[in-house]
Amino acid sequence: MTTYWCEHAVVDGVVVDGVIVEVADGAITSVRSDEPPGAAVRLAGLTLPGFANCHSHAFHRALRTRTQQGNGSFWTWREQMYALAARLEPDTYYALARAVYQEMAAAGFTSVGEFHYVHHSSDGSPYDDANAMGSAMIAAARDAGIRIALLDTCYLASGIGTAPEGVQRRFSDRDAEGWQDRVEKLTSQPDKAVVIGAAIHSVRAVPRQALSVVAAWAQATDRPLHVHLSEQVAENDACRSAYGRTPTELLSDAGVLGPMSSAVHATHLTEHDIALLGGFSTRACFCPTTERDLGDGIGPSLALQAAGSLLTLGSDSHAVIDPFEEMRAVELDERLASQLRGRWSAAQLLAAGTSTGHASLGFADAGRIAPGARADLVTLDLATPRTAGGGSSLENVVFAATSADVVHVVCDGRVVATRDDHNSIGNELESAVAKAWGDG
Amino acid sequence: MTTYWCEHAVVDGVVVDGVIVEVADGAITSVRSDEPPGAAVRLAGLTLPGFANCHSHAFHRALRTRTQQGNGSFWTWREQMYALAARLEPDTYYALARAVYQEMAAAGFTSVGEFHYVHHSSDGSPYDDANAMGSAMIAAARDAGIRIALLDTCYLASGIGTAPEGVQRRFSDRDAEGWQDRVEKLTSQPDKAVVIGAAIHSVRAVPRQALSVVAAWAQATDRPLHVHLSEQVAENDACRSAYGRTPTELLSDAGVLGPMSSAVHATHLTEHDIALLGGFSTRACFCPTTERDLGDGIGPSLALQAAGSLLTLGSDSHAVIDPFEEMRAVELDERLASQLRGRWSAAQLLAAGTSTGHASLGFADAGRIAPGARADLVTLDLATPRTAGGGSSLENVVFAATSADVVHVVCDGRVVATRDDHNSIGNELESAVAKAWGDG
Repeated sequence: MTTYWCEHAVVDGVVVDGVIVEVADGAITSVRSDEPPGAAVRLAGLTLPGFANCHSHAFHRALRTRTQQGNGSFWTWREQMYALAARLEPDTYYALARAVYQEMAAAGFTSVGEFHYVHHSSDGSPYDDANAMGSAMIAAARDAGIRIALLDTCYLASGIGTAPEGVQRRFSDRDAEGWQDRVEKLTSQPDKAVVIGAAIHSVRAVPRQALSVVAAWAQATDRPLHVHLSEQVAENDACRSAYGRTPTELLSDAGVLGPMSSAVHATHLTEHDIALLGGFSTRACFCPTTERDLGDGIGPSLALQAAGSLLTLGSDSHAVIDPFEEMRAVELDERLASQLRGRWSAAQLLAAGTSTGHASLGFADAGRIAPGARADLVTLDLATPRTAGGGSSLENVVFAATSADVVHVVCDGRVVATRDDHNSIGNELESAVAKAWGDG
Repeated sequence: MTTYWCEHAVVDGVVVDGVIVEVADGAITSVRSDEPPGAAVRLAGLTLPGFANCHSHAFHRALRTRTQQGNGSFWTWREQMYALAARLEPDTYYALARAVYQEMAAAGFTSVGEFHYVHHSSDGSPYDDANAMGSAMIAAARDAGIRIALLDTCYLASGIGTAPEGVQRRFSDRDAEGWQDRVEKLTSQPDKAVVIGAAIHSVRAVPRQALSVVAAWAQATDRPLHVHLSEQVAENDACRSAYGRTPTELLSDAGVLGPMSSAVHATHLTEHDIALLGGFSTRACFCPTTERDLGDGIGPSLALQAAGSLLTLGSDSHAVIDPFEEMRAVELDERLASQLRGRWSAAQLLAAGTSTGHASLGFADAGRIAPGARADLVTLDLATPRTAGGGSSLENVVFAATSADVVHVVCDGRVVATRDDHNSIGNELESAVAKAWGDG
């Protein structure tokens, strides 16, 4: 058993002082406030629950900076991303993902939802172990010390009615039954820090009939089901043209929406789409730092929340890995769009980044500092150039802090990163990115 | 004389390796690349020119985090800002500004343009030294080690045709001649690191006739002239209603536009406004992290640049103090608005943040690593969790780095901050913010 004393901690959504947190077997067993530190391990600053990174493509981290030359759009960016996807092998992808998950751990993320679609070898044929790549992702997260929901992604088509081409052959299991057979081999995970979930890449990449197969499997086994939704206007146009309905309407017809489902991006929606998503309590996973980077646009976060779709957050392409940036970007983008302030409160954004996020990945017992919860403790330095003067307020967390201000991270009761690790994490990233590009 | 060896450095807008920079009397005397370090002081990482923070209200730093509760707009935010402005005295404002300028120095800013309007005592009467507050700002910057352009601001009216009220009486010199008399007492500065410039608060706060007085004074003495322009739609509406023209048209009529003038924000403009600003080569000073925070909207940065208005950058309300965030925010906001990528290149944004910015403050010999330039050297760690893998590219600087990655800052030949100072800067900020609010 370990006993921590937090100078300040967020308990039940509010900041309290002098908090003793007792931890045993990876779970919190007791939380008491207004206590002296005694012999406990002292955590100076403000201690938060762990953050959930609900949408990750780990390999995109190797694109950071490199895709910022020249001009273009989401679609030209995708060509650069495909060039990298074509190079990955289980060993290089493991090394890259482990370094990326270490970066996440140091930033305060304790769960990651890996939206994983690079399944097969470079000619499209399965590896000897058909799940070699997915297993590499799981090992990478566990070796970095964080939990993973492997959102194993069905990807069957280049566009509506078009076979996979080029690197997309690595993504495809030929049909939904092939996808299901492969994924089922992954599902006997003894590790409580691993969830196997499902994902539908998009209505572009999964034909109508296959949508229902994936959805039925996820729902029958009570697993998270994530889907890229209406990130780009072109996707909406193609879907309307092929099916006479919006992507959201198509997903609704196929039974994809529901409380264990997450719609990722949800940027370009109609009012009917919003009503459908909210009516089914489908979560809305926004990735605002990526949505800025890719020029996706500003999604209707407030309208979705009002309709019943709770917000979660992800760093997606990892142009930035910083839960604080993601939280505030939702509100700041709303301010740019509406010319009003205070649309989202700090408490709402913190819930999106923590408890709602973990639940959307199948870790319903994470994201709170409370007895019975998984023992995640993320401690912020309140006296850095960025946080000084803001005190132990939720507003300081959401609007001023950055990943650089995180000094100590506990996940499932284990210390997984401290500020002293930043140098070595940088060095691992450097080496892993170079190897992913064949330069290392 | 000091000799530095930079592992990588930005020279003439491109990255070169193994750069020897010789410095004497605050200026760069020689720059040579492809050199071994020898006995020089080694700067590992990527060394950049100093950044210019072209729009600062130093006291707003004490609002960081505190204005994020509740909801409202720019105008309700202004009420909170006024409550703080009402409390400032020369000693507390000096201490606060010094800590804020230290935060800027550590982030890589080597010049600040302080748009200064809290001139008088709390009942509106002058201090015994009528420039006690402005002199406190100058001392704060020099004690923090950075250069300052004190943009002494004319503020005469609460709105068009309305006398100053409440705290605004602290801002007012009664008439433009009173403003000019006071400012002229400041102009004999022996320190080459200090420029006295002029500012017009806005077309709301300076009557039409007074605009010409301020502009004529600035132009006759070849000083920078800055003005808040069309940050909010309400300002445009009031100006059109009172004068039958836009704020830009009014400024143009009054002779305010020109190559030593900067239009700050320039958010809500007509095509005619853009043509006027560009035609006079007026600089456009964007403050994108503040413009997000205050819900101002996204200004037409590309159209302004194309018309002839060069871009500069400022952190304004200091919700964020980070030159890298300001640079990339211009491009990322453009991506959100246009759904296209690569609108601004990294090289263009770096020029906006450095050489163009310093020139707009009257420091035309700063912002480049070149013989004859002021010796500003800002060194980035390229192996942090944020920068690792991006190499020594301009894209890594603009799109991945943060203020936390700045490890060593030289201004006018003096080392003014290193990463080891971050703790003490945080502590000074903590104390100064508390004292500004009367809590210290």
